[in-house]
Amino acid sequence: MNILIAGGAGFIGSHLSDALLELGHTVVCVDKKHNLENPRCVFYEQDICDAVKLDEIFALHKFERIYHLAANSDIQKSEKNPSIDICDTLETTINILNAMYKHGVKELLFASTSAVYGDKREILRENTGDLRPISYYGGAKLASEAMISAFTAMNGMKANIIRFPNVVGPRLTHGAVYDFIKKLRKNPKELEILGDGKQEKPYIYVKDLIEAMLFLPFEAGMNIYNAGVESATTVKKIADMVCEEMGLKDVEYKYTGGSVGWLGDVPRFQYDLSKIHTAGWKAKHTSDEAIQLAARAAL
Amino acid sequence: MNILIAGGAGFIGSHLSDALLELGHTVVCVDKKHNLENPRCVFYEQDICDAVKLDEIFALHKFERIYHLAANSDIQKSEKNPSIDICDTLETTINILNAMYKHGVKELLFASTSAVYGDKREILRENTGDLRPISYYGGAKLASEAMISAFTAMNGMKANIIRFPNVVGPRLTHGAVYDFIKKLRKNPKELEILGDGKQEKPYIYVKDLIEAMLFLPFEAGMNIYNAGVESATTVKKIADMVCEEMGLKDVEYKYTGGSVGWLGDVPRFQYDLSKIHTAGWKAKHTSDEAIQLAARAAL
Repeated sequence: MNILIAGGAGFIGSHLSDALLELGHTVVCVDKKHNLENPRCVFYEQDICDAVKLDEIFALHKFERIYHLAANSDIQKSEKNPSIDICDTLETTINILNAMYKHGVKELLFASTSAVYGDKREILRENTGDLRPISYYGGAKLASEAMISAFTAMNGMKANIIRFPNVVGPRLTHGAVYDFIKKLRKNPKELEILGDGKQEKPYIYVKDLIEAMLFLPFEAGMNIYNAGVESATTVKKIADMVCEEMGLKDVEYKYTGGSVGWLGDVPRFQYDLSKIHTAGWKAKHTSDEAIQLAARAAL
Repeated sequence: MNILIAGGAGFIGSHLSDALLELGHTVVCVDKKHNLENPRCVFYEQDICDAVKLDEIFALHKFERIYHLAANSDIQKSEKNPSIDICDTLETTINILNAMYKHGVKELLFASTSAVYGDKREILRENTGDLRPISYYGGAKLASEAMISAFTAMNGMKANIIRFPNVVGPRLTHGAVYDFIKKLRKNPKELEILGDGKQEKPYIYVKDLIEAMLFLPFEAGMNIYNAGVESATTVKKIADMVCEEMGLKDVEYKYTGGSVGWLGDVPRFQYDLSKIHTAGWKAKHTSDEAIQLAARAAL
């Protein structure tokens, strides 16, 4: 197949392009800047917020399927600048939908997020109502889903929406594991932890997630799936595991305090995974295993 | 209060500005073009998709509250051009949210729509899940709600989201009543009706809706309300009532056929109105009464 990966030079996108190339597909990657792209893909260093340039790329290649993973990857960064998520997370989606519409591309996989649910204590099902994202990132992802719904209905597209949890593994570029290693390399005696360390989230191993993305069939209409693991890991435990992998003992933890890591952070959530399990996919690694593998890969 | 009405020269916006001026508020209206604006408001002929110009208007006036009614008002028109709703319905919201954020404006009333629910047969509650809009208009309105959720949570804004049903009354600029009168004036013997005429929707009288908009308090966070009437009117009955009001008999109806009027049309829906009724507001007119008043006002 002739495939475009939007965000193909990023952490998840690079693993996806590896897997799709391995399967024999022709892979074109578009990303803001060179980073982790596979050298065997056709690479465009191009901001997808530029609709004209994106249209030119669509005109050059006859794409059969789009994997849209382009987004702001650093939720905290947009706190003081909502435009980051409006451009990188929402406008990228709109430009891709417009280009698909114009060039007759019918299949889309969209990387959505647990953040669309907002801060809910109930178990999150794909059809849970009253979604109230509390971060610009979550808002822009839910807004993207809404536009995908409209384009799908109006144009007979097939869209798989996968709501990712936290994703970890080799080539991390951000997140708790990445930050902790960076901080501990600078000062192995002390570790600043955002919040009270009790935030507890499911972490999925990136290669498990790639399997889900490749496994789910493209069926008529818009199909939404939670993808994740049943287990979860606290931020404190991530710190413990990173310290252990680094062989550090007696590191003093300094908590910034409060129940959330940053404004817009959802401190805990739990997915109902019955839909994707019934479809036939299950993650191979638990949340703790995913963290451990990610920490080892980063060292 | 110092109030901005985005879309203040449109059908609903003009009634709202009349009411707010009557209450003694200072009203600034921004709209794409001069149309129905009250001459006592400060009027800017300005496309709200131009963020720079909108920012200038926010800088000139110290708004305390925004009523955002600016949107594409003709759902059918965008079928062949999704950009109409992306610009007029979604980007207007994003630009307004950015301007509110920058200028510290905390109160927003957003005109949303039944179209956010998509085509559902169940009774629609504000917390109904699995929202799948089937038109660009519905998608852009739901996307707007998602961004309002994020801005509200991140900035302590107060937002009332009112999901409008079909709205009719004096100064109609589009919709079935308006179209039927226009067609019958051209040819009083024959009337083309989109679909099979069995589409059945609740129509609210515009002045009842304005009362709801003025009545609902601005409370912390994002508050969503269905506003509407418990009754509903079929398209065929609208045709009958318009013919009767025009004194026309034996008009031949020509149905274009199919269960929907156009691609993206939701042929029937029913609101649960208990939330807004419990809050203390109820429409004074039934759906049929609203249609009759609208037809009379247009003749």
